[in-house]
Amino acid sequence: VSSGNTGAIAAGGVILLGRIPGIDRPGLGAMLPVLNRPTLLMDVGGTVRCKPINLFQFAQMGSIYMKLFRNVENPSVRLLNMGEELTKGDEVISAARQLIENSDLNYQGYAEANDIPNGISDVIICDGFTGNVVIKFGEGLGELLKDQFKEEYANHLLPKVGLLFMWTAMKRVLGRFDWEKAGGSPVLGVNGTVIKVHGRSKSKAISYAILGAANFAEHNGVGRIREEIARGGAQ
Amino acid sequence: VSSGNTGAIAAGGVILLGRIPGIDRPGLGAMLPVLNRPTLLMDVGGTVRCKPINLFQFAQMGSIYMKLFRNVENPSVRLLNMGEELTKGDEVISAARQLIENSDLNYQGYAEANDIPNGISDVIICDGFTGNVVIKFGEGLGELLKDQFKEEYANHLLPKVGLLFMWTAMKRVLGRFDWEKAGGSPVLGVNGTVIKVHGRSKSKAISYAILGAANFAEHNGVGRIREEIARGGAQ
Repeated sequence: VSSGNTGAIAAGGVILLGRIPGIDRPGLGAMLPVLNRPTLLMDVGGTVRCKPINLFQFAQMGSIYMKLFRNVENPSVRLLNMGEELTKGDEVISAARQLIENSDLNYQGYAEANDIPNGISDVIICDGFTGNVVIKFGEGLGELLKDQFKEEYANHLLPKVGLLFMWTAMKRVLGRFDWEKAGGSPVLGVNGTVIKVHGRSKSKAISYAILGAANFAEHNGVGRIREEIARGGAQ
Repeated sequence: VSSGNTGAIAAGGVILLGRIPGIDRPGLGAMLPVLNRPTLLMDVGGTVRCKPINLFQFAQMGSIYMKLFRNVENPSVRLLNMGEELTKGDEVISAARQLIENSDLNYQGYAEANDIPNGISDVIICDGFTGNVVIKFGEGLGELLKDQFKEEYANHLLPKVGLLFMWTAMKRVLGRFDWEKAGGSPVLGVNGTVIKVHGRSKSKAISYAILGAANFAEHNGVGRIREEIARGGAQ
């Protein structure tokens, strides 16, 4: 369990622990606190540009992770794309879609980015560049809005009074999106358990991450991924 | 001025109007209502995957557009990347950075996605896949939060009272991010004026877009882009 630089952790994981045989590139996942359930977005910066096999293996590893770690029965998988139509995107996405469709994964189609916050899927697959942009943009938006309203509360009386009345409602809404409960970002495909927590994580988030890592190790997550890949992922 | 399908408008613009000579691919921009000033994000879906020359030409066209249409003196330009360090990203981004750096554009370095909402730059350049994901993810988050709080107001008395007290503060905060004032998304690089407004645009947004299109035509935006490209963009 580490809370340092993202790329360094993925690289360090590979160097220290080695790669699971058959895994072309490890994937760095992010548990997003979307509506009502966490979604595993993968990759979020481990592999900048992906080949179809990378996206396919992220889908395999992400599904196993959600099964073991989140107790999600038959996790749904979607590929992030610019639209729902099959003609959208490029050849890499199209080829990855065919690999995933022809596997035993629970593939549900493309996801558009506006559906991510609605909890449209247990696993959403994209290249590391796109995933990195998604999580950082979300963080940036959230922090900016928080800062803006904090300023209003500090400088004006009315919104401060209003905040008192809205407190329970805000708690209710924000409780549906608690990223600390999401429990850290797994690095999947390395030969051991690596869970990354956010650089700004409070102790609650870190304890969830440690629980998650213990759970993953206990359920032999690495072994399960290794087996799945070895048997060709039911392609 | 059109409010239909994004890709169709870019394609239609090229077919109907032709491409400006020297422009490899047209760019579809989105005026983002970020903090205190609009930012032109480009491309947002016209060109899915880009060559370095495409990103460079988006930077050229975007700068001209912001100069003419937004009256921004010497618009700042950044390339969207996964970090600020030069080693981040892939070869395409690195090569595009070198083209932009060696031009007379006001290049300020890479932008990370969390900086987009803060108004870090007048123009932010990325490939169409990434830009499309950014605007859709932002829309999705905004709508989800709006729906969540609407539900709270509808079902609980306290937050409804709180909303009354917070109304002016919310107006103040949201007024700093009014995307309707951003005035539509320009399609740049086609041989004429095409401005796309959002499918859900209200009349205010559409009227801003028409004003913008008129302004762009009046200032000979197409001619200026054509000249700039013809003289090699001071590479």
